[in-house]
Amino acid sequence: MSFATIAWQEDGVVMLDQTRLPAAEVYLTCRDYDDVARAIKTMVIRGAPAIGVAAAMGVALGMQNRLQAGQPLDEAGFAQVCRTLAATRPTAVNLFWALEKMRRKWEAARAAGAAGEEIVRRLVELALAIQREDVETNERLGAHGAGVVPAAASILTHCNAGALACAGYGTALGVVRAAHAAGKVKMVFADETRPLLQGARLTAWELQRDNIPVTVITDNMAAYIMGRGEIDLVVVGADRVAANGDTANKIGTYGVALLARAHGVPFYVAAPLSTVDFSLATGAEIPIEERAPAEVTGLAGQPTVPAGVPVRNPAFDVTPA
Amino acid sequence: MSFATIAWQEDGVVMLDQTRLPAAEVYLTCRDYDDVARAIKTMVIRGAPAIGVAAAMGVALGMQNRLQAGQPLDEAGFAQVCRTLAATRPTAVNLFWALEKMRRKWEAARAAGAAGEEIVRRLVELALAIQREDVETNERLGAHGAGVVPAAASILTHCNAGALACAGYGTALGVVRAAHAAGKVKMVFADETRPLLQGARLTAWELQRDNIPVTVITDNMAAYIMGRGEIDLVVVGADRVAANGDTANKIGTYGVALLARAHGVPFYVAAPLSTVDFSLATGAEIPIEERAPAEVTGLAGQPTVPAGVPVRNPAFDVTPA
Repeated sequence: MSFATIAWQEDGVVMLDQTRLPAAEVYLTCRDYDDVARAIKTMVIRGAPAIGVAAAMGVALGMQNRLQAGQPLDEAGFAQVCRTLAATRPTAVNLFWALEKMRRKWEAARAAGAAGEEIVRRLVELALAIQREDVETNERLGAHGAGVVPAAASILTHCNAGALACAGYGTALGVVRAAHAAGKVKMVFADETRPLLQGARLTAWELQRDNIPVTVITDNMAAYIMGRGEIDLVVVGADRVAANGDTANKIGTYGVALLARAHGVPFYVAAPLSTVDFSLATGAEIPIEERAPAEVTGLAGQPTVPAGVPVRNPAFDVTPA
Repeated sequence: MSFATIAWQEDGVVMLDQTRLPAAEVYLTCRDYDDVARAIKTMVIRGAPAIGVAAAMGVALGMQNRLQAGQPLDEAGFAQVCRTLAATRPTAVNLFWALEKMRRKWEAARAAGAAGEEIVRRLVELALAIQREDVETNERLGAHGAGVVPAAASILTHCNAGALACAGYGTALGVVRAAHAAGKVKMVFADETRPLLQGARLTAWELQRDNIPVTVITDNMAAYIMGRGEIDLVVVGADRVAANGDTANKIGTYGVALLARAHGVPFYVAAPLSTVDFSLATGAEIPIEERAPAEVTGLAGQPTVPAGVPVRNPAFDVTPA
């Protein structure tokens, strides 16, 4: 891969600005934790695992800045950083999982009587470990998932669960990458994924970069393509999986799952354990983010809906196990 | 209704330019039959019944112009006009149905020894009759369809099968209008209908004009909204219905039908007899128009898909009876 979704630097967290793709490849440096929070909220970075890594780095960056500014490394400061990062997006559980891991490290370091610099060092180390482990997990997930992909497969995916949605390699697109490396991929069909077009903009961009054949379709073409027998399997990522297997993922995933069932096409969810929320019995308890109407009422500054007409904009749906 | 989809004038055929809605309400005058053909092809006017009316008026206009230019009103000239209009869009059968009706009138007038002016008068009369009958048919269709709409109904529709898709009143939206007049409509959900956004741009526009409550959703939200029990029935139009009831309609209709079945939501097709093609045994024989990739790769001049990535763009799909 010739790009980095997110990287830790001494003076900040660098992210590929995904709102600008595919038109421009621009890297953005977050200088403090609230920059990171804004980047998550505005979807400069998105995808459940990537949000988790960003949140961890945001905590480390926030505490490092406090240390350098001579502010006390106290519980109030730590809680403020975590609260800001937690308030960005409600559905992807990796965000809360990463914040919880950072909190445990913080509490352990303080309990061990570590000094300011040592605490920050441990937080940075953990954030980097979360990043590293995400890529390793995805590589294992990909190797495992490639086993279910038949030869000369046409694979449908929804949204972007790729390297751009993770620290690297990808979950759903990790399976695609591993299957492609094994010579099994004939074509990847990417749903464009309205309203924010993560399939058209991001999945197409990163697969093209890796020379994996990809064709973009509008979301409402999936049934037609399946009906023609052109899809061998569907693989998607996840933002939160309940204990019973109900899976929240990008809006439209539930519809694709129903279409796959109607056509007898296997449907797979590729996700790391950090996406599973064992505290929720079923998907009914997963909070679904409702985003701003403007994402639906226009595109590229052009209004597509008459002024005054209401829209809905749930960002996720839940596919029953 | 405070707009006219299509109108015959002495010197041309006037159409509301649907490619400009909802941003601008611009009327376009077609001065000859090839202007009408271009308007159909570029979707200035669209919707199966409206295309039929436009084609009939195009034939009348073409022959009227020949008469005024002193050209012979011969079979070669008539065939040229019909051929050009027939080559615009392949799926909606109303186009061919209207051309066939005009041809029969043409042949009958010639067989009766009618003179040039009389032939043109009869062609214009028939075109106006097709337009008038389309509205009357839709009003009857609406009255009939309103009977299946329950009280306080939430209705999902796909694409635009409204007054804008017909000479007036609409097929699917004719049912909505009649049900609304009977006080039965709580909300109409309009799929935005990528790639050309007929739902977001046109259905929302004409329902808002008539003060019928409408909410726009992206195509991939339909399953989520149905899953929440928010849809009582689905009603769509049709571009061509085969003898066995298989129905070609705007891409995405087949998917919506499968989602409706999965949720136990009644799904209705509202179409006049002119949309039924008894010459085709099943939907497998219906030609499906594949339109230009540019409709999918960008929106409002903004690229949404990386350069070089292929797309698919079937304009219709077939829902099995």
